[in-house]
Formats: sequence, C-alpha cells, structure tokens
Amino acid sequence: MKLLEDRIRRDGRILGTEVLKVDSFLNHQIDPELMAAIGKEFARLFADKKIDKILTVESSGIAPAVFTGLSLHVPVVFARKNKSLTLPDDVWTADVYSFTKEITNHIMIDHRFLVAGESILLIDDFLANGQAIEGLLSITQQAEAEVVGVGIVIEKTFQKGRQLLDGLGVEVESLARITSFDEGKVSFLS
Amino acid sequence: MKLLEDRIRRDGRILGTEVLKVDSFLNHQIDPELMAAIGKEFARLFADKKIDKILTVESSGIAPAVFTGLSLHVPVVFARKNKSLTLPDDVWTADVYSFTKEITNHIMIDHRFLVAGESILLIDDFLANGQAIEGLLSITQQAEAEVVGVGIVIEKTFQKGRQLLDGLGVEVESLARITSFDEGKVSFLS
Repeated sequence: MKLLEDRIRRDGRILGTEVLKVDSFLNHQIDPELMAAIGKEFARLFADKKIDKILTVESSGIAPAVFTGLSLHVPVVFARKNKSLTLPDDVWTADVYSFTKEITNHIMIDHRFLVAGESILLIDDFLANGQAIEGLLSITQQAEAEVVGVGIVIEKTFQKGRQLLDGLGVEVESLARITSFDEGKVSFLS
Repeated sequence: MKLLEDRIRRDGRILGTEVLKVDSFLNHQIDPELMAAIGKEFARLFADKKIDKILTVESSGIAPAVFTGLSLHVPVVFARKNKSLTLPDDVWTADVYSFTKEITNHIMIDHRFLVAGESILLIDDFLANGQAIEGLLSITQQAEAEVVGVGIVIEKTFQKGRQLLDGLGVEVESLARITSFDEGKVSFLS
C-alpha cells in the first residue's frame, strides 16, 4: 500500500536494527484518515471472504480494526490484556509474550463475543515474532471459530511471525512488508 | 443521541446500582457503524471550535476518538496506561485511579505529541467519577495546551465527574446522560 509505505519512509523512526517506531501515526498518535484508508484496503483484499467478525488486541490494533469493520459491516472484538494471575472463568485466554516490553500478558475475550462456527478476520498493527497473532489463533481455536484471514498493517519479513502464518493455510495480507532497516533506511518487499 | 440511548436500553446490562456494562457495542465488542455515528455527532457538536488534536485514553476511548478525528480532520493521541513505577522522562504523566478495577494507572503522553498552545478536544467513553478526564486535564495543563471541549459517550449524572467538569468553564457534551438505574431500568436526562 503505497500511501502507508510513503508514510513509514517519512515518519517512521528506526531504533537499532529491528525496531521501527510509528508512534506518530499508528500506535500513540493516530492519523484517522490513514486508518480509514487502511480499513478500506483490508476490506478490498478480503472482499471475497465470508467474514462474521474481526478480532484484534488492545490497544494498537483497535484503530485499523474498527475502520476495517466499518468497511466490511461487521463487529470488532478486541482482546483485553491482563497481567494478573487470576482471570475470570467466562473468557477465552492465551499468553502473549512481548519481546519489546519483555513481559507476558494474558489476552482475554469474553465467551459471549466469540462463538463456535464464526468466520473470523484477525487484524493487528504489527507482525514481528507473531506472538499476538498466535494468541488470537489459540483463542479462536478454543472457541471453535474459524480464522479465514489475517490482515497486518506492518510486517517485518525478517522475523519469525511470517513463517508461522505461512504454515497456517489462511490468506495473509500485509499492507507494508519491510525487509530490512539497513543503513537506517527502510526497505520494502516490492 | 437517540441511536445511542436506544442501543443502551437494548444491549446495556446493569450490574448493581451503579455499573452499566456496554461491552457488546462499546468497550470489548465494538459496533463500528455506531462509532462512526458518534464521531459525526461529536464533530457536529464541536463544529464551532478550533480544534488541533483529540486526546483520549486507551483502550475504550480509542474507537469514538478516531471517528471524531476523522470527521474533524485532526489527529488523535491516546494516553497509554502504565502500572510500573519507573516511567520514561520524555512523557507528560498523571495518576488515574479506577474505582471499578481498584487500581491506579499512570497515564502517559509523549512530549512530541502534545505541545504548548494546541487546542485540545478530550474524548472518553464514560464519565463516572471523572478520574480519567482529570488525568487528561492535568496532562494538557503540564504541556501548556488548552482544553476547548470534552466529549463523553456515556455520562452517569449521579456520580461526581459531572461536577468536576461543570467547574471547568469548557463545553462538555455527553451523548447519553444516565440519571439512574432504578428498578433495573436505565433512565436518561431528557
């Protein structure tokens, strides 16, 4: 998605060799017009799929997910993160380790909002090591719902999340695929 | 806002005498069409104000805020919640106590995304005791920005948040104002 790649080139900040900060338009400050365009693009890419619901994780997944939900006319459910050891018993849950924050969150979705037989599109802001998507896949499986697609705003192709998704046999669409940050410059898979 | 009041009557769940759960359309599962309508309504209500930026708090404020931002053509910044005692030094921060969760979060906004002289619209999903809005007001003051309006999706008029806002001298718009949950029925200020 050219609009997004241009924005990453212009406003993304590279830290070290693996971290890209996009907090000026995606995950702290948000550009609503860009999010609306992202939602329309995901809706276009998954137009041939029957989708009942979109699943994402708080907080950075919410903006791209709600605009995709608006374009596809389906509800959005965001998994809540919880660090406490005692969880309510009416939730689907999975552990998600964050490599950047070095903490494990339990992510949770209320049983009422994910039910057997539903066709699910997963949306997330980043694909790096794939931990968040893996957690959402586990939750969907527990609920006996079916993941019919995965939409990622920014993918880092050189981390192991992509391999995980390639093995799933579901359609994965990443709007920007970053191959390297060599010499402080973002390179995209063309 | 009739659309919202109708939805609260239909899908809101009352717990005890003070808690309203709207997790089926606002803060766990999200109805994107309703959020888009809410964004348009806030934009209409604050149309006469000069607004540079919208501020909210993760996670439940994000959906109403991004649609308001889309309608007003301004960026949205969401404050991040953090429980840890060590905070980065390049953030504005305030403590926010949650009566429902009985925890104190530090909320934080990066210095780069809130600067002196900006005209700010605060948006949040709920107004109850006003703790979150108080935190956002404190942060805005630290940054020497100016709050020109406060938009609340659901207000409980019988808790102390309303008094706090009445004393501020800024325009406050609540889309649904709940006066009581007596006899398990939601009453709105008409």
